[in-house]
Amino acid sequence: MNHIRVIGLDADDTLWHNESIFERVHERYRALLAQYHDAATVDRQLFATEIRNLELYGYGVKGFTLSAIETAIELTSGKISAEEIRTLIELGREMLDHPVELLEGVAQTIPALATTHTLLLITKGDLRDQQRKLAKSGLASHFKAVEILSEKDVATYASVLNRHGIKASEFLMVGNSLKSDILPVLSLGGTGAYIPYHLTWMHERTDELPDAPGRFFRLDRISELPSLLSGD
Amino acid sequence: MNHIRVIGLDADDTLWHNESIFERVHERYRALLAQYHDAATVDRQLFATEIRNLELYGYGVKGFTLSAIETAIELTSGKISAEEIRTLIELGREMLDHPVELLEGVAQTIPALATTHTLLLITKGDLRDQQRKLAKSGLASHFKAVEILSEKDVATYASVLNRHGIKASEFLMVGNSLKSDILPVLSLGGTGAYIPYHLTWMHERTDELPDAPGRFFRLDRISELPSLLSGD
Repeated sequence: MNHIRVIGLDADDTLWHNESIFERVHERYRALLAQYHDAATVDRQLFATEIRNLELYGYGVKGFTLSAIETAIELTSGKISAEEIRTLIELGREMLDHPVELLEGVAQTIPALATTHTLLLITKGDLRDQQRKLAKSGLASHFKAVEILSEKDVATYASVLNRHGIKASEFLMVGNSLKSDILPVLSLGGTGAYIPYHLTWMHERTDELPDAPGRFFRLDRISELPSLLSGD
Repeated sequence: MNHIRVIGLDADDTLWHNESIFERVHERYRALLAQYHDAATVDRQLFATEIRNLELYGYGVKGFTLSAIETAIELTSGKISAEEIRTLIELGREMLDHPVELLEGVAQTIPALATTHTLLLITKGDLRDQQRKLAKSGLASHFKAVEILSEKDVATYASVLNRHGIKASEFLMVGNSLKSDILPVLSLGGTGAYIPYHLTWMHERTDELPDAPGRFFRLDRISELPSLLSGD
């Protein structure tokens, strides 16, 4: 793929673990509310609150924490204690303070790709949280620029490409979400490499399968990228 | 000032009201906790929590809301009710959903400046919240770029200037915070126009007075900018 000049990389669950941290917090959240509701009800209600708040809060840990507190008050009809709410705030802080654990192969692949291509980090979520994770990751120096977006859709990708003077035909986006990383880029005429993570947040799930022969690739791990790029 | 080619503008309390919205929320917060503590204690404790959480939360309404909940639990020794915490969450949502009220002269001055200079919006806070306010303001089309920073200091301003290929000597920053808008730009060799707002968040206050003859200006309102720029 000699035509690829710039590679955009998603961060959470593409470079480092994220959803697995949320999943561990969900488990503790279900346990906290277990005397009131079964796990399925807790999950369903929390997800409904998150989606309702998404437009105002955007993505990230702080919005998640606020939605978790709101849901706990609803689900317990106000019987949850201040001490338990303090526990939820503490869970949120632990998530923000969590060590960054790179996915397998990332520490080797990113420096290698940076010698042959221009790399952009393209992510969404809390501004400060994503910047902190990038700093902790030790990968920051390999990226020419960092784009933290409030939403990843056709319009925001078009704006990133435009801002950096990148043609869609020379752009490859790599990520674990078909909805946020792959489909918008394909519809702009770019190329997508989809590397699924073992967990996907419900909001990122899609049944839509890309129909873009020669521009859509599914990989098992990031270490397969260099050979994909050096192929025809 | 013919040498100024690019103008950076702060957003909150420079283009639109912000601290006054926080102040009204503070009043309701003090009232909520009035049966436990006097207003000065509430203010002092909330500010202490905000500063302690700043590194993890960054700036913005969501972090403020979480700090307000945490402080309320502390100050009431856990006696605050879930219903009252729900009220705090609602206050946070009202802040995020608040209409954007432009400061006097902004609606006239920004379009005028955009015909003679390149304008950048340079702000900190929640990514989505700032983008939403800019969209609501009706001013977005006048800015060449929007930079939402997790911190406004010498390093982040240097990075913005570098990214846009701007020399410090041709850059004017306009804002209501000496600490965040003026001092870092002056120390890079740029020019600063300080337009105080009638309220300043304690964290933004500074006793340091700029010592930069010919590069520091104090204005009463934004409508004074065009004549400052057309002067010698």
